[in-house]
Amino acid sequence: MAKFSIGVDYGTLSGRALIVNNETGEELASSVYEYPHSVMSECLPSGKKLGYDWALQHPQDYLDVLYNTIPAVLKESGVNKDDVVGIGLDFTACTILPAKKDGTPLCFLPEYENEPHAYVKLWKHHAAQHLANKLNAIAEARNEPWLKNYGGKISSEWAIPKIWQVLDEAPEIYDAADTFIEAADWVVWQLCGKENRNSCCAGYKEMWNKRTGYPSKDFFKALDPRLENVIEEKLSNDISPMGSKAGGLTADMAEKLGLNEGTAIATAIIDAHVFVPAAGIAEAGKMLAIMGTSTCHMLLGNEEKQVKGMCGVVEDGILPGFFGYEAGQSCVGDHFQWFIDNCLPASYYEDAKSKGMNIHKYLREKAEKYKPGESGLVALDWWNGNRSCLVDVDLTGMILGMTLLTKPEEIYRALIEATAYGTRMIIETFREYGVEVNEFYAAGGIAKKDPMTMQIYSDILNLPIKIAGSDQGGALGSAIFGSVAAGKANGGYDDVFTAASKLGKVLDTKYTPNPDAVKVYDKLYAEYKILHDYFGRGANDVMKRLKEIKKSV
Amino acid sequence: MAKFSIGVDYGTLSGRALIVNNETGEELASSVYEYPHSVMSECLPSGKKLGYDWALQHPQDYLDVLYNTIPAVLKESGVNKDDVVGIGLDFTACTILPAKKDGTPLCFLPEYENEPHAYVKLWKHHAAQHLANKLNAIAEARNEPWLKNYGGKISSEWAIPKIWQVLDEAPEIYDAADTFIEAADWVVWQLCGKENRNSCCAGYKEMWNKRTGYPSKDFFKALDPRLENVIEEKLSNDISPMGSKAGGLTADMAEKLGLNEGTAIATAIIDAHVFVPAAGIAEAGKMLAIMGTSTCHMLLGNEEKQVKGMCGVVEDGILPGFFGYEAGQSCVGDHFQWFIDNCLPASYYEDAKSKGMNIHKYLREKAEKYKPGESGLVALDWWNGNRSCLVDVDLTGMILGMTLLTKPEEIYRALIEATAYGTRMIIETFREYGVEVNEFYAAGGIAKKDPMTMQIYSDILNLPIKIAGSDQGGALGSAIFGSVAAGKANGGYDDVFTAASKLGKVLDTKYTPNPDAVKVYDKLYAEYKILHDYFGRGANDVMKRLKEIKKSV
Repeated sequence: MAKFSIGVDYGTLSGRALIVNNETGEELASSVYEYPHSVMSECLPSGKKLGYDWALQHPQDYLDVLYNTIPAVLKESGVNKDDVVGIGLDFTACTILPAKKDGTPLCFLPEYENEPHAYVKLWKHHAAQHLANKLNAIAEARNEPWLKNYGGKISSEWAIPKIWQVLDEAPEIYDAADTFIEAADWVVWQLCGKENRNSCCAGYKEMWNKRTGYPSKDFFKALDPRLENVIEEKLSNDISPMGSKAGGLTADMAEKLGLNEGTAIATAIIDAHVFVPAAGIAEAGKMLAIMGTSTCHMLLGNEEKQVKGMCGVVEDGILPGFFGYEAGQSCVGDHFQWFIDNCLPASYYEDAKSKGMNIHKYLREKAEKYKPGESGLVALDWWNGNRSCLVDVDLTGMILGMTLLTKPEEIYRALIEATAYGTRMIIETFREYGVEVNEFYAAGGIAKKDPMTMQIYSDILNLPIKIAGSDQGGALGSAIFGSVAAGKANGGYDDVFTAASKLGKVLDTKYTPNPDAVKVYDKLYAEYKILHDYFGRGANDVMKRLKEIKKSV
Repeated sequence: MAKFSIGVDYGTLSGRALIVNNETGEELASSVYEYPHSVMSECLPSGKKLGYDWALQHPQDYLDVLYNTIPAVLKESGVNKDDVVGIGLDFTACTILPAKKDGTPLCFLPEYENEPHAYVKLWKHHAAQHLANKLNAIAEARNEPWLKNYGGKISSEWAIPKIWQVLDEAPEIYDAADTFIEAADWVVWQLCGKENRNSCCAGYKEMWNKRTGYPSKDFFKALDPRLENVIEEKLSNDISPMGSKAGGLTADMAEKLGLNEGTAIATAIIDAHVFVPAAGIAEAGKMLAIMGTSTCHMLLGNEEKQVKGMCGVVEDGILPGFFGYEAGQSCVGDHFQWFIDNCLPASYYEDAKSKGMNIHKYLREKAEKYKPGESGLVALDWWNGNRSCLVDVDLTGMILGMTLLTKPEEIYRALIEATAYGTRMIIETFREYGVEVNEFYAAGGIAKKDPMTMQIYSDILNLPIKIAGSDQGGALGSAIFGSVAAGKANGGYDDVFTAASKLGKVLDTKYTPNPDAVKVYDKLYAEYKILHDYFGRGANDVMKRLKEIKKSV
């Protein structure tokens, strides 16, 4: 008798549940629920104004996702609740909230409902930038050894700057909070009635390390004396590796969701990292790029290496027993969209319209006629700064080689190529530091819908590219962890590697490097690299000086 | 009793006559005649095909300009022919034709009418590029001293490569030609019945120097033994300075034009250089920029300096008694038009349309809201190579500083600023070599119609800018030379300085540098300069390598 798992994927604007057959991997039904409060960036539900760069969410929305989507997928699939053996979930990371000892979010309490700091700080809450800068300066001055595991810089999105902001601006909220917890772990807590913190968030976003723990009390004290014991007082040293079972579904939740009490709940994971098992990756050397507005790169390694400019390396952070490496590019789909919104001439729009074509497709049809090198253009893909390997938000975009004959589609293609050079730079940096990259997988909208871009990537990286198969890779990956939480005896799997290889999916479509294109792109990449180092490594800091001038006027 | 002069301005597609009151400068009437044969770039009138990069004209069109426009301005103005005392004319330069001893163009002879090399080679005939390259290599190898007067490079547009092409490809035409003559001088010849060659064309385009003459016979022999005596055999050593009288109108021409026999005819001048007296400039240190699709810079100096990267320095080349300096930027109006054609989004077009606004004006209204430095962008204005000071057609455009928030109008403004930095680079180079630049004048469409651009130029150059006043600056300048050919005794002037100061015109509108903007632009120009030197002077020849890759694929 077939058994099933449910994966729940929490994004920035909505949550999605998916029910999966544990044996065949068949995706039977899915359901999406949009957060009623969406992202609160201007005011609280009460109308109270928020500051610049704030981004909050309401935790009730996360529960409502469960209450709406899980019954919906059960109904649509017709699966009996007795056959649902495990639930897994993934979430945006550094999305963090203050709660009481029993898990009640502070913002649920009437006395705090008009207090911005009592709500969930979404990953893209950037109002703690000044504290992140301070933290980085102190960590660097103290030569903190863990800093190199994060490419030398902590983001304002991460947990500690956000918690510090609460302490700094609303000490009464800080005091009232018994704990600060990732929303991912908070939902797991609501499901199984006990706190369970995942190694993925803790490792990538909270500076935790399996072997050495968190940064020292001395370091936290150096930030603010009141933070000396922040770990013991407000976080936890009890961290579960990926692939763990967090507990069983509570009776109350079971009733609300229409499932059985005790259904296995998996330790949560970050929404990007969960794509790795969903693509069937269960070994070292296979890089997965999740290509959307930005790109997130995941890679498993057998050893811990401190690779300059990476976003992080975390033991057990993606799959247990491996060192999970993360890198990123801040501007990929956003880059192409910027071009279409700001640079595409009216005549192209009209022509596409008269042909009934989508503008992206129209532009690609023009761009794909060009051979590598034919445009004479090269760009630096830094329209939104550089996440890896330079870790520098103050870098900006550059394009070079234009003539009066340069066409819009050539610029468009050059921007695509630039992002591929950026990916190659990341891969070469990993290799330089002794971390193998032998295969390349891509997931996300661009990977599936844009063959021209994927062929360009294959030619520039000189690697074959496989495409992740599920349209709901996040939810599928979570369901895989749900099946592992259930265990083989209950119709799931005893380890995530077997589960990933059985349930993970890649498409039959595969991209293979074209040797002629590889030769030309090797030359162009050499040019990219010279410009990358010239503008990115201090020889000419013009981009930063222009930003300073811009700020000063 | 008022006396009058007529100026005739020969452009690429048409010729224009203007009749001017010699005392008041009043422009009484003008008339334009379009060349019936226009530019022949694909075939001869007979249908015979032309090669790649050819551009020919028909000399009959130049005569038809006279026959049509001079009677028209006489009629419209009501001026009596007895009161017309002088005629001057200006022409595109390096527009050259082969003729018989009596001035008959070879293409007028039936035996040559199907022979492309018998026609006028227009300035933009580029099919002699291979010979220009050869000429430059030989001149450089021989360390020819005159080469530095032309910024170190001769263009394929100039006379010698064009004459050499005739010899190379049609030696029978070369042999049949008794002379090769600038179209400017050929028209003067037709008017007054004798050959008269001007020092402007000879100096800027034919490598003639008042003190040292032409390059040596040895040099010409090194190009091709048959060219050893090219000057004596096909050109002339008899060169007239600007401001000379070439002769009097022939009886035949007088009848055809409705003027008196003997009316004074001025030595011709190039169509750009003629703007100098038309703007009332008659002394050293005042730079005039004629701003159109490209920009041409004219400057009078008291000494001959070899300024690196300039287009030329010619004694008596603009006004007698001065050293006339010329520099240029290959891409100005063309640059802005490229942006509008290729980069301006549909939404802007629609918005402009719905507001009934010209798209340039619409864009300027958006762009002029930005403060200097506010866009964070800097560009290199090399979309069409760099004419001065790098003299390098293989350089290409660059823009830097883009973010996801960068708007089209910011890019547009950055391109305008880039051309102004390019002008400042030219001015600073002149100063570095000891040639003074104290005032800046602008002529042409951009100068009159685009106050935002002119203010940006004033701020970037840190110079007040005066705008040339006549809408027909070329024809006005020619009329000024006509009045000088007539002389004071006949109702004209005895010298061009007095004539220019009386008849030249500037607008009341003047642009003055804003000290706050100057401060910011000084910083931005410093960034431009670093990038200019890095990409333009060999530190990183990426632009050339990209062009090579482009050619190879």
